[in-house]
Amino acid sequence: MGSSFAFEVTHTDGRARRGRMTTPHGVVETPAFMPVGTQGAVKGVTHRDLDDLGAQILLSNTYHLYLRPGDDLIARRGGLHRFIGWTKPILTDSGGYQVFSMASRRTIDEQGAHFRSHLDGSPHLLTPEKAVDIQAQLGSDVAMVLDECLAHPSEAEAARASMERTLRWACRARERFLAVQAGMADGVTVSNRAQAQFGIVQGSVFPDLREESARQTVAIGFEAYAIGGLSVGEPNPVMYDITAQTTAVLPEDRLRYLMGTGTPADLVESVARGVDLFDCVLPTRNARNGQLFTREGPMNIKNAKYAEDDRPVDPSCDCYTCRTCSRAYLRHLFAVNEMNAATLNTLHNLHFYLDTLGAIRDAIVFGRFESFRVSFHQSFSRQPHDS
Amino acid sequence: MGSSFAFEVTHTDGRARRGRMTTPHGVVETPAFMPVGTQGAVKGVTHRDLDDLGAQILLSNTYHLYLRPGDDLIARRGGLHRFIGWTKPILTDSGGYQVFSMASRRTIDEQGAHFRSHLDGSPHLLTPEKAVDIQAQLGSDVAMVLDECLAHPSEAEAARASMERTLRWACRARERFLAVQAGMADGVTVSNRAQAQFGIVQGSVFPDLREESARQTVAIGFEAYAIGGLSVGEPNPVMYDITAQTTAVLPEDRLRYLMGTGTPADLVESVARGVDLFDCVLPTRNARNGQLFTREGPMNIKNAKYAEDDRPVDPSCDCYTCRTCSRAYLRHLFAVNEMNAATLNTLHNLHFYLDTLGAIRDAIVFGRFESFRVSFHQSFSRQPHDS
Repeated sequence: MGSSFAFEVTHTDGRARRGRMTTPHGVVETPAFMPVGTQGAVKGVTHRDLDDLGAQILLSNTYHLYLRPGDDLIARRGGLHRFIGWTKPILTDSGGYQVFSMASRRTIDEQGAHFRSHLDGSPHLLTPEKAVDIQAQLGSDVAMVLDECLAHPSEAEAARASMERTLRWACRARERFLAVQAGMADGVTVSNRAQAQFGIVQGSVFPDLREESARQTVAIGFEAYAIGGLSVGEPNPVMYDITAQTTAVLPEDRLRYLMGTGTPADLVESVARGVDLFDCVLPTRNARNGQLFTREGPMNIKNAKYAEDDRPVDPSCDCYTCRTCSRAYLRHLFAVNEMNAATLNTLHNLHFYLDTLGAIRDAIVFGRFESFRVSFHQSFSRQPHDS
Repeated sequence: MGSSFAFEVTHTDGRARRGRMTTPHGVVETPAFMPVGTQGAVKGVTHRDLDDLGAQILLSNTYHLYLRPGDDLIARRGGLHRFIGWTKPILTDSGGYQVFSMASRRTIDEQGAHFRSHLDGSPHLLTPEKAVDIQAQLGSDVAMVLDECLAHPSEAEAARASMERTLRWACRARERFLAVQAGMADGVTVSNRAQAQFGIVQGSVFPDLREESARQTVAIGFEAYAIGGLSVGEPNPVMYDITAQTTAVLPEDRLRYLMGTGTPADLVESVARGVDLFDCVLPTRNARNGQLFTREGPMNIKNAKYAEDDRPVDPSCDCYTCRTCSRAYLRHLFAVNEMNAATLNTLHNLHFYLDTLGAIRDAIVFGRFESFRVSFHQSFSRQPHDS
């Protein structure tokens, strides 16, 4: 493994930032998008395909890997990178989001989240400390703290209580993280000696709570900071405002990661508000459901009007799918339920996301992000395909 | 499109033949194995992957393509090659095998096979002429005649009647084929002006019927000859004997295609008996079920003993899967039901089949096929993995 975690902003253009995140498994040019490999694989595409697409970093889900094959097994294999054969950076979430999502199977208290496995009903307890330990065993390059994920909408009082609990959990998580990395946690195998830990800002849609959460989280001190609890059903303008207000409080010299977002337009708007890192299942999940992203808006390949359409999905796209497949063929594969439909659609959508981020990075370097942003929206929101 | 169909034997070693099949979409070095792309795609792997694996020719299923998206639609797209974006040779079956397989949904008479679609129950009639027309519209490089596929075991009398019907159908199919290729079939779009048509030898497990079928089929005159009705449940030694007896009757200068076979050992034994071409779903279907072929026998990757096995499936294999994935990772992907398990397993199994055929071709050229055959069986039938 190489050097430890670092981040530097190399260019700014308005509030948009071009930067470089260094991890033990290599450099990530930011703003960057992380494909989601929930169980140690991005559904439908091989690591080789991800390399070809220019993916710089993967996100993997702690909840799933904890249950199967288990973080102990992965630690015995030398960590997640070696287990799955991915040599570039990996970020793991805390597992909290999945646990909080299964409302009927979990209870939350100050200690942590008590839940039952969705697989066999077995009882488990996810504490801030346990989330640190699991991720230490996985050996991701970036570990996330356990935060409380509040449903939207929430009352201000509930949002404050939750935000404050998240802060207390963040303190516990940081303390545990430092102990674990120092080799002072018995029974925990540290698979990555240079792992970084990101704190998470909560506070729902309330600017004062967000500001307080950001200041207190920064006061604890993490390698970088994430914005959690957005993209959970609030209107887009609210998400954009909260993002802008939060990044304004976060330190300039630390990376900002907007969790679980979003549409291509969301990414552009969030970069405009100072975000550096993204993850989202949208390009991969929607690909499997037949929705393809193009420069001229999304396209539903299931649509009967594509049955005899010999054009590529996006004539201006140079991904493998667009270079070799017609809309007619992709629609056929989807209609007859071939798994290759998922593969080909996912290759295209990930290419679109990663290519868009590449264009964003270039635009920032050349000081023309604002014109990129305007022309992106003009093209993307035309949505002529399925109107 | 290039030249029309041709075949030449370039080397012999005992009864094993090394040859070259020329088609409008390129050359196939024989003995060759055709991966099965039932609906215009090999499940789980892209055309690019197939190219990398060295696949020379695909088999696609007329029954499936006739129902969805329909041969008319494919003809309007310019034929199957253009529709699916595969530029190398394609062989299509007649559709008969699928129709005969669904016993409760079809009746056979002299005219052809009356059947109901497995998708919507709609009634259809597949005649020898219709099978020609559909494949002409698909524009495959090699079309197969409609034959009657008899269940095993069959009485000699039923086998004779069926074999004789297959001969009458072959006459009708050849007549129609010549008319269609001459542009004398109204309403049929000929998507490939240099398509070849293979006859099929039937006769169940009865040597006299097989010999008669072979002589009569050759008398009709086709570009090459297939052996059908094997690998349907008869014992292996019977299959090998019937294959040997049939190839002995077929002309030396024509390619021989053993349909729907088989295991890696079957391929080696059939090459030893003068077969040039194979197709089988075994490597792809078994991959999706977790069975991997290796030089030391098949391996069931689902087995719990692989959960912490960091070795590749086959340390001597240089396929993408073996170069980058451990048994532990492949077992995990299979256990958690990731579609990537199907992809990675299929890449390996197809590599094993195609690589084995490559080794066979080399062995024939250098006159050491017999020693290859012996050492192959010694290694492959050890089966230590799951004993």
